[in-house]
Amino acid sequence: MNPLDHEEFRRQGHMIIDFIANYYRDIEKYPVRSQVEPGYLHKRIPENAPYNPEPIETILQDVQNHIVPGLTHWLSPYHFAYYPANASIAASLGEILCTGFNVDGFNWMASPAATELENIVMDWLGKMLELPESFLFSGNGGGVIQGTTGDAVLCTVIAARDQLLNRIGRENIVKLVVYGSDQTHCSLHKAAKIAGIHPNNVRSVKTTKSKAFALSPDSLRAAIISDKEAGLIPLYLCATVGTTSSGAVDPVGPLCDVAEDYGIWVHIDAAYAGSACICPEFRHFIDGVECANSFSFNPHKWLLTNLDCCCLWVKDPSALVNAFSTDSEYLKNTATDSKQVVDYKDWQVPLTRRFRAIKLWLVLRSYGVVNLRNYLRRHVEMAKHFEGLIAMDKRFEVVVPRNFSLVCFRISPSARVNGCSADDEESTANELNRKLLKSLNDSGLVCMTHAIVGGIYMIRFSIGQPLTDYRHIEMAWKVVQEYTDAMLGTYLK
Amino acid sequence: MNPLDHEEFRRQGHMIIDFIANYYRDIEKYPVRSQVEPGYLHKRIPENAPYNPEPIETILQDVQNHIVPGLTHWLSPYHFAYYPANASIAASLGEILCTGFNVDGFNWMASPAATELENIVMDWLGKMLELPESFLFSGNGGGVIQGTTGDAVLCTVIAARDQLLNRIGRENIVKLVVYGSDQTHCSLHKAAKIAGIHPNNVRSVKTTKSKAFALSPDSLRAAIISDKEAGLIPLYLCATVGTTSSGAVDPVGPLCDVAEDYGIWVHIDAAYAGSACICPEFRHFIDGVECANSFSFNPHKWLLTNLDCCCLWVKDPSALVNAFSTDSEYLKNTATDSKQVVDYKDWQVPLTRRFRAIKLWLVLRSYGVVNLRNYLRRHVEMAKHFEGLIAMDKRFEVVVPRNFSLVCFRISPSARVNGCSADDEESTANELNRKLLKSLNDSGLVCMTHAIVGGIYMIRFSIGQPLTDYRHIEMAWKVVQEYTDAMLGTYLK
Repeated sequence: MNPLDHEEFRRQGHMIIDFIANYYRDIEKYPVRSQVEPGYLHKRIPENAPYNPEPIETILQDVQNHIVPGLTHWLSPYHFAYYPANASIAASLGEILCTGFNVDGFNWMASPAATELENIVMDWLGKMLELPESFLFSGNGGGVIQGTTGDAVLCTVIAARDQLLNRIGRENIVKLVVYGSDQTHCSLHKAAKIAGIHPNNVRSVKTTKSKAFALSPDSLRAAIISDKEAGLIPLYLCATVGTTSSGAVDPVGPLCDVAEDYGIWVHIDAAYAGSACICPEFRHFIDGVECANSFSFNPHKWLLTNLDCCCLWVKDPSALVNAFSTDSEYLKNTATDSKQVVDYKDWQVPLTRRFRAIKLWLVLRSYGVVNLRNYLRRHVEMAKHFEGLIAMDKRFEVVVPRNFSLVCFRISPSARVNGCSADDEESTANELNRKLLKSLNDSGLVCMTHAIVGGIYMIRFSIGQPLTDYRHIEMAWKVVQEYTDAMLGTYLK
Repeated sequence: MNPLDHEEFRRQGHMIIDFIANYYRDIEKYPVRSQVEPGYLHKRIPENAPYNPEPIETILQDVQNHIVPGLTHWLSPYHFAYYPANASIAASLGEILCTGFNVDGFNWMASPAATELENIVMDWLGKMLELPESFLFSGNGGGVIQGTTGDAVLCTVIAARDQLLNRIGRENIVKLVVYGSDQTHCSLHKAAKIAGIHPNNVRSVKTTKSKAFALSPDSLRAAIISDKEAGLIPLYLCATVGTTSSGAVDPVGPLCDVAEDYGIWVHIDAAYAGSACICPEFRHFIDGVECANSFSFNPHKWLLTNLDCCCLWVKDPSALVNAFSTDSEYLKNTATDSKQVVDYKDWQVPLTRRFRAIKLWLVLRSYGVVNLRNYLRRHVEMAKHFEGLIAMDKRFEVVVPRNFSLVCFRISPSARVNGCSADDEESTANELNRKLLKSLNDSGLVCMTHAIVGGIYMIRFSIGQPLTDYRHIEMAWKVVQEYTDAMLGTYLK
């Protein structure tokens, strides 16, 4: 047995490429959200690993027959759920190079190209976002590819925590407070919990519909003052550009101003919307980022980069390195000793790291800045088009102002059709929209998810998958209307 | 632009498969450890991302010309550094399926197959290791694929911490103590630091050459007693099966007995050596695991699975879920509500998760238990063969007893050849071996790394890469001898 025989790799490799190419060709045929029941796979797969080898042909047949039906097809053009998880030919090729080389670039020495290419693409991307020089390696800051936002938030919380505790004493850990809004992603709560921040010291500052669910600087200041009066110690603010529920944008600049008054670390989480900020017309959403300590977004969401890839920039890499560096004899080497290189193991939780930079490099080069911008703009235009479709049917309403390519809509509480109506009360509207969403997802024709903001249950129509085009948007809207018809009775124009 | 056009995917996909197949074909031609200088890539790559798209042919040419020279070739059959990072055709195909489907299986609903297949392969692998039923889903325990050991150790430290602090009060965080030996992987220190354990409360219990650098249960007990007397609270023990420096094995059963007396969470880190334990003749190294709380090893090291893949089993999944669960409205769904499914987002730090289970499934099926065992056994046999070669040259000695496929050797302090000799003193021997290792790695013919145990600098010859065969072992030894000849003068038999 030679498990890396190059001719056999070639044979099986071509087979798998064809398998995936056919999957993309046929993807519209599959129910978007998997229709299986819990436990389906246990019934189809043996209880033990096989003792003897099985041929790849058999295995791929099983993938088709048993795995594909259990997938929710994130790459389907009808997948409008959550935020997108992008893929592209360029990034797929990058992933194949990454897994093909299979280098573990935990420090420079372990594979110099992995580290240096990451330095380079992080500076490239930082410039595309017009991040200030202080976030780039060329300006003594720097960027690192993490797995996802959860990692980026955890790493920056830990860096901020240790920077502060090293000054004021470890025993103060129980007094630290972190801040976000009630729209901030759960990653902040998780990171704070992991970091040993007291569960009572995670502030979810209330947002309101009147301010489009953005975190108000005044409310933040009030929360901080109240905490300080209680003898607590403000540590960290996570401001969001493009919240998960509704795509809301916290005002970065004014929030940084407040944070600065109290010496708080500010992290900007632009997981989804950060991609759009490579377009000059959307860049203003991160105005003020120059006053933050760190910034992250996920090219794996909306920048044509396969999972996983979260880009994190920090102004002060030493804060990360002081928190995460380890000093094992077995990893010592002359390059590290020279202090001329970056050892990314000290910028993250795990030691091991895949060569993720190469897929980002392939994406940036294969599409170029021009096509990446146009790709993003097109989704935003589609979202406007979808809003136009909604506006033509008075049963529906857009719930919150749209910033990017996420449209949050619902059957309006005022919709009264054929006697089978939504009650004026919000709670009835919520129930109706919940039912509508369930029937849409059960149909397998489209996939969407929901959120609740300010007590309003709304359907999130998140555009951003690479295969999605205008025809899919229109078809999806038709499906929404038809299922609403069936629920409410036919809409008479 | 259609970034997922299936015909273009097919064309470029076949191209990249050929690229990697050729890389494997030619891999012996490359210097194993990259020979570039810090900053080499910055000189070759433009300062900005291209505005216009570039053809894949140009990009692949650049990968060959600029990236490949900057790689340390982990898959080279002459790569004996660190511990191996395995790859195989089956796992590569699994990675391509993973990135091709690009599903984000953070909960069951987001792609049922991803979760259920992970449940299944973790039980398969658990049975292959003869883990007790209590670690399997079928026995109300369960397994999860993490990125790497750092993640597994962090998750279990956090789970143990919160389980205890929820009982005794969060303010006690400053009193918690974690235990390992002076051979324990740096992941423990990092995890403890992240978890907010006081840096003074991480015990690295001293090991000795006379006990083959294994953690002594008596020493552990003494450390615990001393901490308790000082008013501290013992929390967590990381026992290692196959330490990084020398492959030492901590006595799992006796250590668990000590830990049990003090209610300490025991994690078994078998990152490298765990793979071997699927062979009945090596299974005894984890005897006693039934008394531990958690167990992890990395198929990406030595079980033919491409990066990254760390398998973690716990007896009490609720300890993980209590520590890591979040409760965002936008992720709520009926399957979760039914409590019939596993939502892996609550078993790990990040939310996002790639479909790693599919590569493990392909590995287990493509090779079968029989070939996987034979693969591991062959490396151990090669290690014995290498020891035999060392024994025939009196200038060298094996420093620590070998347990698996890692041989730790050095030029002996007693080597006196042609007047240009190693001093009897260890420090001179250390310097000599350091020089030898540097010259070996600078040659590009082989790649090895070092460790220091008990003051002894030794060269680690770690066998376990999939392309490595007996001829590579013999050639590597010849290179070691030749470079030693050059340093010491020719060895006269």
